[in-house]
Amino acid sequence: MSVTANDPKRKTWINTPENSDFPIQNIPFGVFLTRDDIITIGTRIGDTAIDLGAMHQLGYFEGIPLTDDIFLQDTLNDFISDGKKTWRLVRNRISDVFDIKNETLKNNEDHKSIILFELEEIEMKLPVQIGDYTDFYSSREHATNVGTMFRDPENALMPNWLHIPVGYHGRSSTIVPSGVPIHRPMGQTLPRGAEKPVFGPSRLVDFELEMAFITTDANVMGEPVPINEAEDYIFGMVLFNDWSARDIQKWEYVPLGPFLGKSFASSISPWIVTLDALEPFRTKGPKQDPEPLPYLTQDGNHSFDIQLELDIITEEGVATTISKSNFKYMYWTMAQQLAHHTVNGCKVNSGDMMGSGTISGPTADAYGSMLELAWQGTRPVPLNDGTERKFIQDNDTVVIRGFCQEGGRRVGFGKVSTKLLPIFGS
Amino acid sequence: MSVTANDPKRKTWINTPENSDFPIQNIPFGVFLTRDDIITIGTRIGDTAIDLGAMHQLGYFEGIPLTDDIFLQDTLNDFISDGKKTWRLVRNRISDVFDIKNETLKNNEDHKSIILFELEEIEMKLPVQIGDYTDFYSSREHATNVGTMFRDPENALMPNWLHIPVGYHGRSSTIVPSGVPIHRPMGQTLPRGAEKPVFGPSRLVDFELEMAFITTDANVMGEPVPINEAEDYIFGMVLFNDWSARDIQKWEYVPLGPFLGKSFASSISPWIVTLDALEPFRTKGPKQDPEPLPYLTQDGNHSFDIQLELDIITEEGVATTISKSNFKYMYWTMAQQLAHHTVNGCKVNSGDMMGSGTISGPTADAYGSMLELAWQGTRPVPLNDGTERKFIQDNDTVVIRGFCQEGGRRVGFGKVSTKLLPIFGS
Repeated sequence: MSVTANDPKRKTWINTPENSDFPIQNIPFGVFLTRDDIITIGTRIGDTAIDLGAMHQLGYFEGIPLTDDIFLQDTLNDFISDGKKTWRLVRNRISDVFDIKNETLKNNEDHKSIILFELEEIEMKLPVQIGDYTDFYSSREHATNVGTMFRDPENALMPNWLHIPVGYHGRSSTIVPSGVPIHRPMGQTLPRGAEKPVFGPSRLVDFELEMAFITTDANVMGEPVPINEAEDYIFGMVLFNDWSARDIQKWEYVPLGPFLGKSFASSISPWIVTLDALEPFRTKGPKQDPEPLPYLTQDGNHSFDIQLELDIITEEGVATTISKSNFKYMYWTMAQQLAHHTVNGCKVNSGDMMGSGTISGPTADAYGSMLELAWQGTRPVPLNDGTERKFIQDNDTVVIRGFCQEGGRRVGFGKVSTKLLPIFGS
Repeated sequence: MSVTANDPKRKTWINTPENSDFPIQNIPFGVFLTRDDIITIGTRIGDTAIDLGAMHQLGYFEGIPLTDDIFLQDTLNDFISDGKKTWRLVRNRISDVFDIKNETLKNNEDHKSIILFELEEIEMKLPVQIGDYTDFYSSREHATNVGTMFRDPENALMPNWLHIPVGYHGRSSTIVPSGVPIHRPMGQTLPRGAEKPVFGPSRLVDFELEMAFITTDANVMGEPVPINEAEDYIFGMVLFNDWSARDIQKWEYVPLGPFLGKSFASSISPWIVTLDALEPFRTKGPKQDPEPLPYLTQDGNHSFDIQLELDIITEEGVATTISKSNFKYMYWTMAQQLAHHTVNGCKVNSGDMMGSGTISGPTADAYGSMLELAWQGTRPVPLNDGTERKFIQDNDTVVIRGFCQEGGRRVGFGKVSTKLLPIFGS
């Protein structure tokens, strides 16, 4: 089926700001609370939110096999379970309805008053119920930086790293959408030189600049997903901030991996951009040497050229862009991650989320965490208000933006913006 | 509120085999498919399954604040969300209805024909939708054995182990109830002495003898659960077999912890035994030295005397009990695990599951994994059919049983029984 929604020539009758992340070629999916306090599934063109539940009730998806309530839900999980063919049919239809040449809805003021919302009228919610969340560790630059700092610069990468998309299970219950503030966590840490741990607020709260993909039901338990089919089970992507408390993490993580140093919060952008919409921005990832084992081998372009920026905004509102990275720096592809994740028969469900791991680029201004940007506190990062940061301070807001841009085309993710509040109850 | 359901003198009109794990003092909760293919929430007395959905519709829970459909669901999550007071009211009422002196249901053949099932008529399902699953590592003997084998006998415990109930996030999607067979996983391993990894079936499939507890909604995000309140948020316990592929695990687990070596399957017993029912079997755990930090300090008896046994049954049906352990050997208590898990503000939801970690006792016949019982393959474990095992073979069935017994009282968990099939598709 051709993805007509990606037609670069198509224009829309919805007023769309120039350089918007959400032209008619994007058509992402999200969940929002409307001005009437009703939760619905929607999409977005320019700065207009579109209620897909209302569109469906008014007959705009006629001919597409959808249950009546598929968009009247508080998560996208069931829609995602419908599979790639249905996602394409719906995206193509939305593109048709809002095509500048289509006057059906354009000229129906009653319907428009029910279907369209300004962004200020809605509140974005978590788009999926995340059954399981996995975080990978797939940026060679990030793994090398961390290995250099914490272990041995001569052997910064662990022996398994070039053979396995290394990953670990994360905590689903504390993944929140953009705009939801989080608290500095308390925890156990071992002060430098101390014999015994102490308890108190984490002093080293950090972000991790990541992206994540959301899956559909991929397999039955026991059955691996072959690498060449893996992308069919990826619904789309979001921006992802994997908050980390470095001091808690350091004391707890040997031998079973990160736990409370991560599980206090992770933040995502609320609009899931489909893999279909990202199709024009495919690119090759880094050359993989040694060649991966056959179950991880693939031909063609399986990375995406997604430009990433990260700002710190101080309590007074002064913003500084402190990192510019790109998803294409990832050593392991999403297809490789998913094939590896299921090679042991691990079941993957609709709404599962898999993070990339911190995306650090090759230069020091492209690092994806304060740990790396300020190199363990040894090179404080200057901000535009004259202050500097080694880690994140209370009441700082961290914003990640991401977009693809090539020729006249742009498809973006908007942002994930999260304020770090002081410890709970303070 | 007194827990009258625990009255040791109470007898029931339901025929209950002597030494049953499910006397009227147990009243566990589970989910099953009835002979009419309807899914319902139920309990069990002796070898009789009891449909709580039908009981509720017929008015047996009158006066208890329950929604009409609370037991007509395919998981216990909503009932568990109702909280400890409601669990007690329901358990006390069930105990009353089946008391030998209560003739209401006993003499109502119509009602009995709707409410009661023989075990052969039903199929047990997963009792909860598990949002997040965490596995701890709280047996000192197990951690010491593993540290001795893989690291250094002189420093077998990591420096953090006596200060932190060490744990990691696990995979929820592959937790299955007793009776569901699993497949030997495929994966990447590094053969001894090899430079490069290979791909193939795991050769070192192992069980882990564990128990797990199931929580109710414990907190809002950001808010720790104080140690002295932690038990109020524990609904009950199950037997837990945390299947492990030791060769996959060994190659992948540094630095982010176990991943595909564990995520292919975990198995649980289907009846959740409430913490209330276990109350008479409270005991002290091992002395904790050094004293834990204040947020982990508690007085009183917070462990439970639960006897555990593990059998291997060969394909031909020959059973051998190869381990006898006890939950009371756990160094860290469930309350400490939950308090630690939430101290950073991590949100805990209804239906979350937390595993104990392998429960190894002080003697070699009380070890909770083949890794330890056969000491890395150096001391093969003899079976009653004359064969021996270093790890689990295709078509072996692993059975864990658990029960509390003291004086004339017994409350048990039944069993979790799982057959290991050959690799998927073979």
